[in-house]
Amino acid sequence: MAKHEIPYQLTVAGLRTEYLSGETTPHEIIREIIIRADRDKEMNIWITAPDLEFIQPYLDRLAALNPLDYPLWGIPFAIKDNIDLAGIPTTAGCAEYAYTPAEHAGVVERLVAAGAVPVGKSNLDQFATGLVGTRSPYGEAHNALRPGLISGGSSSGSSVAVARGQAAFALGTDTAGSGRIPAALHGLVGWKPSLGSWPTLGVVPACASLDCVTVMAHTLEDVLQVDKQAAGYHSGDPWSRRLPLPEEKQPQYIAVPAEAPVFYGPFADSYRAAWASSLEALAGMGIPLVPVDTQLFSEAAAILYGGPWVAERWADLGSFIEEHPGIAFPVTETVLRSGAAAEYDAASVFQAMHKLQRFKLEARKLLKDAVLVLPTAGGTWTRDQVREDPVATNSQMGLYTNHCNLLDLCAVALPAGEAAELLPFGISVFTPAEKEGQLRAFAKLYSGNEGGRG
Amino acid sequence: MAKHEIPYQLTVAGLRTEYLSGETTPHEIIREIIIRADRDKEMNIWITAPDLEFIQPYLDRLAALNPLDYPLWGIPFAIKDNIDLAGIPTTAGCAEYAYTPAEHAGVVERLVAAGAVPVGKSNLDQFATGLVGTRSPYGEAHNALRPGLISGGSSSGSSVAVARGQAAFALGTDTAGSGRIPAALHGLVGWKPSLGSWPTLGVVPACASLDCVTVMAHTLEDVLQVDKQAAGYHSGDPWSRRLPLPEEKQPQYIAVPAEAPVFYGPFADSYRAAWASSLEALAGMGIPLVPVDTQLFSEAAAILYGGPWVAERWADLGSFIEEHPGIAFPVTETVLRSGAAAEYDAASVFQAMHKLQRFKLEARKLLKDAVLVLPTAGGTWTRDQVREDPVATNSQMGLYTNHCNLLDLCAVALPAGEAAELLPFGISVFTPAEKEGQLRAFAKLYSGNEGGRG
Repeated sequence: MAKHEIPYQLTVAGLRTEYLSGETTPHEIIREIIIRADRDKEMNIWITAPDLEFIQPYLDRLAALNPLDYPLWGIPFAIKDNIDLAGIPTTAGCAEYAYTPAEHAGVVERLVAAGAVPVGKSNLDQFATGLVGTRSPYGEAHNALRPGLISGGSSSGSSVAVARGQAAFALGTDTAGSGRIPAALHGLVGWKPSLGSWPTLGVVPACASLDCVTVMAHTLEDVLQVDKQAAGYHSGDPWSRRLPLPEEKQPQYIAVPAEAPVFYGPFADSYRAAWASSLEALAGMGIPLVPVDTQLFSEAAAILYGGPWVAERWADLGSFIEEHPGIAFPVTETVLRSGAAAEYDAASVFQAMHKLQRFKLEARKLLKDAVLVLPTAGGTWTRDQVREDPVATNSQMGLYTNHCNLLDLCAVALPAGEAAELLPFGISVFTPAEKEGQLRAFAKLYSGNEGGRG
Repeated sequence: MAKHEIPYQLTVAGLRTEYLSGETTPHEIIREIIIRADRDKEMNIWITAPDLEFIQPYLDRLAALNPLDYPLWGIPFAIKDNIDLAGIPTTAGCAEYAYTPAEHAGVVERLVAAGAVPVGKSNLDQFATGLVGTRSPYGEAHNALRPGLISGGSSSGSSVAVARGQAAFALGTDTAGSGRIPAALHGLVGWKPSLGSWPTLGVVPACASLDCVTVMAHTLEDVLQVDKQAAGYHSGDPWSRRLPLPEEKQPQYIAVPAEAPVFYGPFADSYRAAWASSLEALAGMGIPLVPVDTQLFSEAAAILYGGPWVAERWADLGSFIEEHPGIAFPVTETVLRSGAAAEYDAASVFQAMHKLQRFKLEARKLLKDAVLVLPTAGGTWTRDQVREDPVATNSQMGLYTNHCNLLDLCAVALPAGEAAELLPFGISVFTPAEKEGQLRAFAKLYSGNEGGRG
């Protein structure tokens, strides 16, 4: 009888209310999640699926914790399988690469300390390299709303888990858009903190200098609650940064692209129309819209895959790939090997680094008191289309995400209505790392307005 | 008659007192500097020597400025010739490379704004590549005290100018020790601010991500006064950083090398003895001395010249060298070209970067509440010796300096008595960038103690 009372969409705030009022219990929620995961098996959401065998200890410890003192008490969350959960294999989407960590990743440790309950390790584009969700030997993650479409990646399973009611929030990672794209394709909020704001200790590196752990959930309120628990300097993490405590302040203007963005894929027209509606909604927020030249962002983005930065992935994964020929997912191996291309010598990295440093300054100036808004994705694809042309389709998914970490921006992917039925559209908001408060303030205002419209 | 009243050593504090009391004037000082520079011509101190033709406007403007409002009013300073002074060629030690900037470098602008008077552009190891002061087509800079010895480099002319009474302070640059080594060889104080603390806008890049502008002067008081004017975020400088305002606080311990440092060159024994005396002096400061393993620092240092980081110099200068074959100083060209070596591919840079990131964290932990003290140099050489073996002699000069900027440390080179007559010995103090206040506090305590001994 209890089962049908559990809402399909799990939220942090909703579960907390129900736990505190005694309407339901974490045990009941986990039982339901296990049933749902089993029912959705063919969607390839999980690498380690929800199972009481490893979840039970996390539930048992809750009895000794006062929920009022633990903001995530009993909240079930999914962990992308390139982030360590102690005692469970971390595969990064490659069984031969797998290892079983003794310790939680820094972020997982903080969330568990806040009372959250890990429910499983989610599928991903292998080595977090991809934006489609189909590049996994554990199967293509299906889109939660239209199973023939891609889920987005690389944090594919994480997004589907939240969308399919198997977690209240999910951890992803985001180097080039991997946390934002799958959020957008499922109408979720995807929060990409500033580089170094959340620890990346215990995360399989993609591009170590650009990697972020991210969170996806149904509401902004939920991702900000998770951010509150996860953020902060970590003394054991070489990439951790002491960022200024950001003041929540509305931006003075909203920068939008002066030239119409490129839209692609089978729903290009619907996406174009949805973007037009989004611009109208933004115009109604009471903050001036300022069209800006976005060349800076596309030039920065080009450094990531069209330049020497691909070698950063090779720097950490190259020796594994060389020692295990033919083991990696074919397209993943091709992409990774491009980082070993002879055209990229050491000097070319420094030239790119110096160029980026100038771009960062430009971006920081442009967005000092502003946010930039772009479509999160300019379209989507069917899984068949991606299988037929895996590189080009993937590249287009990153058109509006790749620049972000290279330019030291923080971002939030926000739902922005639907491009068509069961086809969510999303926008992304960007601002410099040290202005995260601006992002927070703006996202709250936007979500409030959206709530008002809905 | 006025001339013999001018002290041989010019100091900021001393000149200021004399200006305020009316004992002397900036005009008088500049006249004397021009005479001294002319007398020392064969020492190869200057590339653009002091000359009223370009100095006069800086003197003329002083009349309109109230000295009480301008902390560097009338203070003559030397500028290493890889730092822009508007209207005067910047050569970086290579006539064919020279350009005439329309604007001052960011640092020069701040110092001029504080009332300082630029007196000339000083000789340097070409492209700031070297620690000896002999690698210049403008001649080997002589040591100010023993002209047969090297001056140290690459900020060679700057150190000799201060030592020979031709400037109260001098700007250098310091990527791998170029500001600290020449200071030490002349018994000067050399202040190397944290990366990004002083603007590097308008400075010819050596390794852009590691370059610092530095100052040398006779006293700690003077370098700290210059730091006060020069430091602070610069909105036009891609490498500028907003560093936390550091609290002045004594370190809890002084880290010193557990293993005896290597000393080299013709005065190795005297240097060894001077280091032993320095340890005694440090032990008397009332702060515990803690022997530490310094492998971390030597491994980091090895990345700079024995690894892919040499390619950073090539990244910015490579195209000039390629387009002007045979133009660069021979040993400089050899060193720069090693940055184009095929063994350093793009991935090797990222591997080094990731290793460095771990080293930075280790250093930050070790020196959180501590300073590290090393000899600034483990010896010195005659100019003849350097000419005979230019690479090996130079390498040894960097044994205790190379690690500093790679590990994001700030440093001060302090005089520590004499190794022999007219042969100053020096120590360097290091602490993490965000702990600059610790460096300041410790240097003040040390200089006070030294003053007491002298």
